[in-house]
Amino acid sequence: MPRARKKAVTVTDIATRAGVSAGTVSKALNGRGQLAPATRERVLSAARELGFRLGPPDQERTYLVGVLTTDGIGRFTIPLLAGAEDVLGPGQMAMLLCESRGDPIREQHYVRSLIRRRVDGIIVTGRTSALRPSLGPQVPIPVVYALVESDDPADISVLHDDREGAAMAVRHLIETGRRRVAHVTGPAGSAAVSRRLLGVEDALAAEGVSLAGPPLYGEWSESWGREAAFRLARSGQEFDGVFCASDQIARGLADGLREVGRRVPEEAGVIGMDNWDVMVESSRPPLSTVDLNLSGLGNLAARLLVSVIEGRPVPPGPRLVSATVVKRRSTELC
Amino acid sequence: MPRARKKAVTVTDIATRAGVSAGTVSKALNGRGQLAPATRERVLSAARELGFRLGPPDQERTYLVGVLTTDGIGRFTIPLLAGAEDVLGPGQMAMLLCESRGDPIREQHYVRSLIRRRVDGIIVTGRTSALRPSLGPQVPIPVVYALVESDDPADISVLHDDREGAAMAVRHLIETGRRRVAHVTGPAGSAAVSRRLLGVEDALAAEGVSLAGPPLYGEWSESWGREAAFRLARSGQEFDGVFCASDQIARGLADGLREVGRRVPEEAGVIGMDNWDVMVESSRPPLSTVDLNLSGLGNLAARLLVSVIEGRPVPPGPRLVSATVVKRRSTELC
Repeated sequence: MPRARKKAVTVTDIATRAGVSAGTVSKALNGRGQLAPATRERVLSAARELGFRLGPPDQERTYLVGVLTTDGIGRFTIPLLAGAEDVLGPGQMAMLLCESRGDPIREQHYVRSLIRRRVDGIIVTGRTSALRPSLGPQVPIPVVYALVESDDPADISVLHDDREGAAMAVRHLIETGRRRVAHVTGPAGSAAVSRRLLGVEDALAAEGVSLAGPPLYGEWSESWGREAAFRLARSGQEFDGVFCASDQIARGLADGLREVGRRVPEEAGVIGMDNWDVMVESSRPPLSTVDLNLSGLGNLAARLLVSVIEGRPVPPGPRLVSATVVKRRSTELC
Repeated sequence: MPRARKKAVTVTDIATRAGVSAGTVSKALNGRGQLAPATRERVLSAARELGFRLGPPDQERTYLVGVLTTDGIGRFTIPLLAGAEDVLGPGQMAMLLCESRGDPIREQHYVRSLIRRRVDGIIVTGRTSALRPSLGPQVPIPVVYALVESDDPADISVLHDDREGAAMAVRHLIETGRRRVAHVTGPAGSAAVSRRLLGVEDALAAEGVSLAGPPLYGEWSESWGREAAFRLARSGQEFDGVFCASDQIARGLADGLREVGRRVPEEAGVIGMDNWDVMVESSRPPLSTVDLNLSGLGNLAARLLVSVIEGRPVPPGPRLVSATVVKRRSTELC
């Protein structure tokens, strides 16, 4: 095979020339972490001298952004993509979609392919949950994590606010007159479940009250919500409000409460989380819920990525996007 | 501004040089319609002489496919994208996602942008419904329509089979012993509603029976399904099976029938359409349904596109992807 005209310049080549570490080169090239302006300039000069492609000069930009998802395009990534599109689409940028199905080998293949295609930057996303491995400093272009958090604090991550969202839900129940709040949630091991429980405790502690019984752990499904309603009713435990950690659970719970003769919202207010239209609107009564603002999250991730691409300073670390309470019949004031 | 080294070659330039019409050039370049091999070769030679980029030579391919959707990435386009990914992704191809939000100006902008980015081909998709305007012969690269049908019969379209899918649903009700079948469907004006009604009539005519009353038109929602159950019960009309044109309608109908004391499946079998997991699994009882096989549809669309890109002959026109019946409790044999 004929040798390519120019051998690819690596981060190590630039580090050697600039007399700095590979980590510093990475920070200068992709905006990760803090760096003295003079150091950054020294690295950029070395990179230019070696013919390394840098983000900023317009004539070298492809106006392509890679979107790497780990587990399919689904209910949580769709609004995020729509939000990113609002930032990237109306201009001349386009999104290159890669789906790794949670396979690290496949992911590495895609990352190499995106770099080869000279994308200006990458948005990494996936199912909302715990930390995920950073793509690492060897990726020579800007990367922003959205809906997932990189395990490297030098990376930029944009996340929804599970804890404060859950606290808002409980505060809404309290504001509508409920004092004995139960919590029905997903699997005990899940990071989202733990964060939401912290929020529940924040809001209750501020009022000096505690949960009306231990949290009920189960799965993210309507049938679990229905089952939880039967358990609550059978337990004899008093409750006048229930925060469910998803709209699916809340819808099942509302059905279950109706079937055991507890009126919603008169005898118990019910609030869910997600603002998933088919769930909240078909529920009887329609569900109050917490909207985690995933499209705003996608929008912010895209804006941060463009900032880094264009060489503007962006502090590293995670950022939380605010949630909002959406009020419907299921919590209406008694 | 400095002049680009090479002026872009247009379809008209090639037509003039080859002594054929622009339409013929388009057919030769993008595989639309039928063409004599000699004519095709003449056009390709003229194109090569003018320096026009042709799909086939590997070294000129970008291995990028544009995906142009007209109304967002939603419930129907997700499985389609997943199916396309199965074909395009595992190799080295990538999908460039553009969302026009039903705005023709925006769509034209994206088409020009995709051509400028030298994608190998385009998949056009959108909300499942009637015909849509062809991108037209002036687009000099292969195009395949998926889930939507181009109004130009020279284009390649891949569609789900509403009519046969509906017929399968009704045949399933008949096979499980039902003879008085009601039909609850979406809005009267919708193309999908009309096609599904034709399928209902096909299946009933083959058995020499007719619908147990006129079709009930409404909206694609659970609340309409529930309302339809009340109407059916009040009408006094006898029925022992109901085909609902969507899973949302079917779930609402199953809830409504339970509330008026009609047992599903003992007194009436209920079957929906879509195989939408959150609907069919949370329904009580779980719903039998028709799976329109959207991921198979995306898979076929991508394979056809790759065939055209690689210069293999693909007959123009629409293609239907087969549906399958998924049996669950709601139609179980009485």
